[in-house]
Amino acid sequence: MCSKIPHPKLPIQNPMSAEIICVGTELLLGDILNSNSQYLAQQLAKLGIPHYYQTVVGDNRERLQQVIEIAASRVNILIFTGGLGPTPDDLTCETIADFFGVPLVERPEIIEDIAQKFAQRGRVMVPSNYKQALIPQGAEILPNPTGTAPGIIWQPRPELTILTFPGVPSEMYRMWEETAVPFLKSQGWGQEIIYSRSLKFWGIGESVLAEKVADYLNLTNPTVAPYAGKGEVRLRISAKASSPSVAEELIAPIEQQLRDIGGLDYYGKDNDTLAVVVGQLLRSSGETLAVAESCTGGGLGQMLTEISGSSDYFWGGVISYDNSAKLRLLGVNPADLDQFGAVSATVAQQMAQGVKNRLSTTWGLSITGIAGPTGGTDDKPVGLVYIGLAGPNNEVYSFEHRLGTMRGRSIIRHLSACAALDHLRRCLLSQ
Amino acid sequence: MCSKIPHPKLPIQNPMSAEIICVGTELLLGDILNSNSQYLAQQLAKLGIPHYYQTVVGDNRERLQQVIEIAASRVNILIFTGGLGPTPDDLTCETIADFFGVPLVERPEIIEDIAQKFAQRGRVMVPSNYKQALIPQGAEILPNPTGTAPGIIWQPRPELTILTFPGVPSEMYRMWEETAVPFLKSQGWGQEIIYSRSLKFWGIGESVLAEKVADYLNLTNPTVAPYAGKGEVRLRISAKASSPSVAEELIAPIEQQLRDIGGLDYYGKDNDTLAVVVGQLLRSSGETLAVAESCTGGGLGQMLTEISGSSDYFWGGVISYDNSAKLRLLGVNPADLDQFGAVSATVAQQMAQGVKNRLSTTWGLSITGIAGPTGGTDDKPVGLVYIGLAGPNNEVYSFEHRLGTMRGRSIIRHLSACAALDHLRRCLLSQ
Repeated sequence: MCSKIPHPKLPIQNPMSAEIICVGTELLLGDILNSNSQYLAQQLAKLGIPHYYQTVVGDNRERLQQVIEIAASRVNILIFTGGLGPTPDDLTCETIADFFGVPLVERPEIIEDIAQKFAQRGRVMVPSNYKQALIPQGAEILPNPTGTAPGIIWQPRPELTILTFPGVPSEMYRMWEETAVPFLKSQGWGQEIIYSRSLKFWGIGESVLAEKVADYLNLTNPTVAPYAGKGEVRLRISAKASSPSVAEELIAPIEQQLRDIGGLDYYGKDNDTLAVVVGQLLRSSGETLAVAESCTGGGLGQMLTEISGSSDYFWGGVISYDNSAKLRLLGVNPADLDQFGAVSATVAQQMAQGVKNRLSTTWGLSITGIAGPTGGTDDKPVGLVYIGLAGPNNEVYSFEHRLGTMRGRSIIRHLSACAALDHLRRCLLSQ
Repeated sequence: MCSKIPHPKLPIQNPMSAEIICVGTELLLGDILNSNSQYLAQQLAKLGIPHYYQTVVGDNRERLQQVIEIAASRVNILIFTGGLGPTPDDLTCETIADFFGVPLVERPEIIEDIAQKFAQRGRVMVPSNYKQALIPQGAEILPNPTGTAPGIIWQPRPELTILTFPGVPSEMYRMWEETAVPFLKSQGWGQEIIYSRSLKFWGIGESVLAEKVADYLNLTNPTVAPYAGKGEVRLRISAKASSPSVAEELIAPIEQQLRDIGGLDYYGKDNDTLAVVVGQLLRSSGETLAVAESCTGGGLGQMLTEISGSSDYFWGGVISYDNSAKLRLLGVNPADLDQFGAVSATVAQQMAQGVKNRLSTTWGLSITGIAGPTGGTDDKPVGLVYIGLAGPNNEVYSFEHRLGTMRGRSIIRHLSACAALDHLRRCLLSQ
């Protein structure tokens, strides 16, 4: 090391804080996006736990040991994800135990749990699965309700807490919410929280909405920030407070004002989706829905049925990908199909009426369009989509959308399904 | 630090390698997903530059200094993103200069460039923009064609190279491709590349497959590593070589052996999905497919139609979410529906036959099951799914799956659609 450089010293100690350590060579190869870091970062912020570093390291014993050494010398809470699997390259747990000079012990309750899950899925345990039952002596099991790899909660020394999670996001989320959060709160965290509410808008651009609410973007507590993605605009209201209820009091008036400004473009909050909101409207009015999908090929039905209990108002539909399906399953008029083409207002209307009549639902909603990248023409370019909507009094509407030729197949399909739901939403609200 | 712990030592030196350092408090707050790390990781792999660590740190002078100290002591190439903007909290460049004890100098060519870009956008430079023209004495400018913040390429000491990029992905991509890659190649990188192939398997667990291929997991070049997620297992073969063709020669024999071991459980490679593979098989045999979906509500159709050109073999289908749709659109026998229930082998078979007959396709594929979280009973628990398959010679099959009661609605729906495609795939292959 050249003389100019200050002599290396130990990392600076940070006030009570956490470090996120993601273990996995696939992250170093760029095979997967590190969404776990973002999730954990958001969760730590919610609990008011400061975190100043995130580290990614491969499935390598020496380097992982060194990362643990650095992290343990600068923060008090180490949160690991990844490397808990059954294969030899999964070595997070044993490396942590090694580092703190503690042996691994086999925990029968874990073996039992794994065996049970395997049995449920009609599979049998193999020797390598027993590896997942080994955890450091003195560590608590952090149960994994959905997968086979449990995590640990461990205090290997005073003032140092370790939590481990598998790399599979869905498994980690549940373990975090069901066990880690209660544990961290029991340790006194989450006294001052950052509490957020997202207001969701459809049918208005980010810059237009931002201008409408410009004055609110300078607030300090709560703060208001716009985000945009996949055709949707969100306004996030974040309040810092001692409790959710206090934060709620700070947020409520601002939320109401922003909703008033948004008008019909505001469709829901937080975990609401267009499908959720449409479902609530249909349920409350006791009405039912059927869909007919061309270019989305089932994507609209999937959105609607992501919601448990959607069978109360969603009866099903037809994927009329080929024209023969439009004729046979929806009764679209062959002459009209010929004259106007599959991607037309007329066919969209007949698709909506056809599926509504065949399933005797209150509403029929249809999509026909050109998702691309091929199939576009000068007068019918990629991104041209027609939405059809047939209602209870035999009224039938169609809506034309030009979603852009360059945006790609999957986003055009997504926007088409959302637009269809949004038209139905506005129609249900203005009944 | 308690006595059990080995005395802290300096980080281990790694052979010629890089570290990615992302600077930005927004990453620590979880406001944005760290896609820059993934991009840079992929790019480094392409050039054959080993990288063992990724670090995220906030816009904080002391902590950034400490991160630089650790990184500079364990790798030779430091790649920074973020913290190059005009605002006071953007301090990456000055902190780097401070650390190496070098002053910042104002570079007129940068000021000129910024002024020009502002002029084009009809804006005028404000004082804060001049900050972006300050770079460490002796550093080269890494031009930013699309934005105002340039990066640097700098050797503050022998054997240590620093590259900085703004956090805006689109700006970073162009700077990387147009300047960083040529520079790194001029330094002798990119002679040796890491080239990978992913083999994908369905219908076998990670641990079982890992044991079958245990000997291969110890290979050094190419290496073989297993990954699992969403019901699929992948074996990643990675070769280090002077060119893709040489790497291909190293990979080919191992790939063939692993495919032989995998047998019918092997379904495709790299970007293949089950829908892609099934599509190729149908196209090559000139056969067609229709689907009938209950618990997946359109998800199977969506998977099939994600592929442009799928209309050549996929004609559409029915979303028979409600029983009335099973009766009216698929002609399921009401008595059987009554006797066996909607989630039964019999109904699955009739759904498959029904949709095949109505659309006159070669194959009919159906799914009926209990996605949960509600609707399960003792003899028909959540996760119980029946796949129906009707073929060209009026043969009809059904397959029972128990996907586990605890895995959640969306994963059960995903696994159901994949399982259906997999059964069709195996059937098409063994024709």
